[in-house]
Amino acid sequence: LNHAQLLRRMRNAERPSDAETTPLMYQGGSDHFVGPTSDITAESEEWGIDFEAEIAVITDDVPMGINPEDAAAHIKLVTMVNDVSYRIIIAEEIKRGLGLIQGKPSTAFAPLAVTPDELGAAWNGRKLELPVEITLNGELFGRPNAGIDMYFDFSALISHAARTRELTAGTVIGAGTISNHDWSVGSACIAERRMIETLQGRTLTAYLRFGDRISITTYDSAHSNVFGTIEQQVVRTS
Amino acid sequence: LNHAQLLRRMRNAERPSDAETTPLMYQGGSDHFVGPTSDITAESEEWGIDFEAEIAVITDDVPMGINPEDAAAHIKLVTMVNDVSYRIIIAEEIKRGLGLIQGKPSTAFAPLAVTPDELGAAWNGRKLELPVEITLNGELFGRPNAGIDMYFDFSALISHAARTRELTAGTVIGAGTISNHDWSVGSACIAERRMIETLQGRTLTAYLRFGDRISITTYDSAHSNVFGTIEQQVVRTS
Repeated sequence: LNHAQLLRRMRNAERPSDAETTPLMYQGGSDHFVGPTSDITAESEEWGIDFEAEIAVITDDVPMGINPEDAAAHIKLVTMVNDVSYRIIIAEEIKRGLGLIQGKPSTAFAPLAVTPDELGAAWNGRKLELPVEITLNGELFGRPNAGIDMYFDFSALISHAARTRELTAGTVIGAGTISNHDWSVGSACIAERRMIETLQGRTLTAYLRFGDRISITTYDSAHSNVFGTIEQQVVRTS
Repeated sequence: LNHAQLLRRMRNAERPSDAETTPLMYQGGSDHFVGPTSDITAESEEWGIDFEAEIAVITDDVPMGINPEDAAAHIKLVTMVNDVSYRIIIAEEIKRGLGLIQGKPSTAFAPLAVTPDELGAAWNGRKLELPVEITLNGELFGRPNAGIDMYFDFSALISHAARTRELTAGTVIGAGTISNHDWSVGSACIAERRMIETLQGRTLTAYLRFGDRISITTYDSAHSNVFGTIEQQVVRTS
């Protein structure tokens, strides 16, 4: 199976016919974000608790109908998020066809967001070309590069989001879980690793358990920590 | 065809198996709302421009996992919105399975939001029992009652939204387009009228055209205008 087929299996649905021309984007809740060391609080491990390491940008005011070429200039800050997913709940929500509500709790943000000029050569104007290192309970889980195999860059994503409406300054556009075709670098979410394990006939890694600790860090070429580290623990709702 | 089948046809998809126990809710954008007399600006009539008259509530801080019985106390304000839809775009987005982005431009809000106590007997603690009058280009389009045939009341909707995350004060929960089983009262969106026309073998009402004017008003038992009137015109993007 190739990467596109993997994606289809992960979504447990047919791949849309326009997947090569149209980003798969969802509207997340923005009333409540959490910090880099906040707990991931869930009622049950049966929700299929997963992390998703991704790069995000923050825009200024973006006019409606902007094209991808002009959209890049609206990227004012770059940061990193843990876009936590409840996989079992999402599987049910996708069947309902109106997107994700309960499957997406509050997103955790890195300690820092940086202006693109601070990123130097690692920022090509439309994406960040750096590895993102994920550990689970202190062990390396993946180290995919955010600039490799990014099918839609941030300018394309902003243009997509702004097709029929303006975006207000402060809009956060996440690029989705980092994923490289080279599976040897590991994954940025458990769901992808489980799919690879399925294809390889291996035992599936469990989703997160209460007490598990996840860390996400982006390193530049000098091995400096670019955004600070997201470090979260999974905790049962009290 | 009954009302449930109508709903399925309107969504152009199979009705989810859990439709009777789980609300069909989507996460809308909240970065940019518009006022009661703002234009509905679209690039093309081919987007399938439609209005959706609905009642919405605004909550205070809602804890995660709240049950419907306790949720009602978190309703602090009641208002009315025009949750504009681009029907042709939505049909494509539903196929992609991650919900609505481009099909839902900025929502327009009524001039006023009122505290529940001001609504008197029309507010039963969980829904508003008043008719909402919609005109299109000055002619009555529908006058359905927001308290009739509301399958999930606001407490159920808040509980659904807060199942896996807290909601921050100021969260807007819309109840979806008002719709009565008694079709003689008319509709609160063009899509529903078109479905009824389809079932009756009649010519379909067109979606909104540039220049069309829509008004939405809620009247109390003394025929007072409760939230002020939403009056919007459809305008081509300049």
